[in-house]
Amino acid sequence: MNTLVKGWFSEISDELWPGQCFSLKVKEILHEEKSEFQDIKILDTETYGKALILDGVIQCTERDEFGYQELISMIPICSHPNPERVLIVGGGDGGVAREAIKHPAVKEVYQVEIDGRVVDLSKKYLPFMACGFDSPKVHLTIGDGFEFMKNHKEEFDVIITDSSDPIGPAVSLFQESYFELMKKALRPGGIICSQGSNFWIDLEHVKETLKACACHFKNTSYAMAMVPSYPCGSIGFVIGCLDEKRDLKTPLHCFTTDQIDKLNFKYYTSDVHKGAFALPRFAAKAFEF
Amino acid sequence: MNTLVKGWFSEISDELWPGQCFSLKVKEILHEEKSEFQDIKILDTETYGKALILDGVIQCTERDEFGYQELISMIPICSHPNPERVLIVGGGDGGVAREAIKHPAVKEVYQVEIDGRVVDLSKKYLPFMACGFDSPKVHLTIGDGFEFMKNHKEEFDVIITDSSDPIGPAVSLFQESYFELMKKALRPGGIICSQGSNFWIDLEHVKETLKACACHFKNTSYAMAMVPSYPCGSIGFVIGCLDEKRDLKTPLHCFTTDQIDKLNFKYYTSDVHKGAFALPRFAAKAFEF
Repeated sequence: MNTLVKGWFSEISDELWPGQCFSLKVKEILHEEKSEFQDIKILDTETYGKALILDGVIQCTERDEFGYQELISMIPICSHPNPERVLIVGGGDGGVAREAIKHPAVKEVYQVEIDGRVVDLSKKYLPFMACGFDSPKVHLTIGDGFEFMKNHKEEFDVIITDSSDPIGPAVSLFQESYFELMKKALRPGGIICSQGSNFWIDLEHVKETLKACACHFKNTSYAMAMVPSYPCGSIGFVIGCLDEKRDLKTPLHCFTTDQIDKLNFKYYTSDVHKGAFALPRFAAKAFEF
Repeated sequence: MNTLVKGWFSEISDELWPGQCFSLKVKEILHEEKSEFQDIKILDTETYGKALILDGVIQCTERDEFGYQELISMIPICSHPNPERVLIVGGGDGGVAREAIKHPAVKEVYQVEIDGRVVDLSKKYLPFMACGFDSPKVHLTIGDGFEFMKNHKEEFDVIITDSSDPIGPAVSLFQESYFELMKKALRPGGIICSQGSNFWIDLEHVKETLKACACHFKNTSYAMAMVPSYPCGSIGFVIGCLDEKRDLKTPLHCFTTDQIDKLNFKYYTSDVHKGAFALPRFAAKAFEF
């Protein structure tokens, strides 16, 4: 799945992104272990800072993690009229929690991460993300997101799924039954936003995930963020809303430029929110169903 | 500058993008030569189709070249009220010419490419791009863009610079004197669009290029396209317009969805045009000067 040779970490996957490979030059391997769920590596790289690698796949790097974390959080949260209660499934590095609590309407953030070791190691090696856990608004449970939601019906305004790629343990987070479960855990008018793979890599898979979402959310859409250290340099989000009439492309809450800078958003703005939905024609066309 | 080992082509540059590397699995090396100006490779890759490599840097691949070619052409052309005469500097593969002639108002496309071997080899190996040269509207000159423009003052409505990266022979295409020359070659109300590097790689360099453009064009802006096979998965465009009041973000000519599909645009739409200017906050902030 991956190689660490001659001082370079290479992200090779014949299954997920055949024929292409992104590599980062490594200064130091800070930690390596096999947890109950996955292989975890924390690297210090030459030009991307600290990097978290799960099962050979780059999850986030210090240099560019903000784009993903800000958009997967703010697109759904700013599209909700009153996003008081937020649930994060996954996101063990803490970056999504760090962003979610920035919105003034967010009162409580519940988070369920299956692998406690990712949380522990992020606190030790990746404090720039793990600082998200420091807020008294954030309530972290180490456990299974499926089980958690079964016991929390109609409780959340926003559910964010910050998962790894659709291979191995995370496969179920891209399937219809998962979208059904999220729908039941939402309060009326609620909204979900899930890591949605990348249509540059596998257009058909994204289409299938969107269809699974659309089975339970008539108002379904897809948005993109540039993330240089991800395969193909970008990643998408599958968004579903219980309010059929809400225009997900237009944020209900618009931060001023001053607020954006004070809250230390490095990527998200209201213009970015709108622009994230402007998909290349080949993708927009494939998603017309 | 690059390596071709064990069936992989790796794009390594300590000068341009230190510490990171994108690699493509190669089926066959179709051609290799050293022209008068540069090292030229044409590869057949496992999953990106045919690829053109100049001095070790991926210029375009069959799988994803359309995004770059469509946006560098259509953003300036659709921002001009009557883009009759277009000049392309560089673009020896033919892809930009292929796109430029799609716009109904474009009557003549003049193109100056310094390296005739790139044109010859594209015609032989990359006909999906070189087909741009087939149109009777396209007039190709093999020569120096600087010299060409010195002899063609106030002749063009749109000037597109499709150059390689700011290293070696292309350095001058990112400097102030080049923007001055383009300004003089434009007709009143004209607009220029140049390959503008990538702020994810070198924010300061993009800022300097924008400043060089702004010395001669008070209406200067920057837009982005996702291109998976480029470093960091995206690339930017520096745009300058002689009409100070024109809103570059809003296309003057909007194609209908039917027209978009009939003209075989795979990336460009009016929404994509607008969205391309929605820069991440850290970049937008750096470009406020």
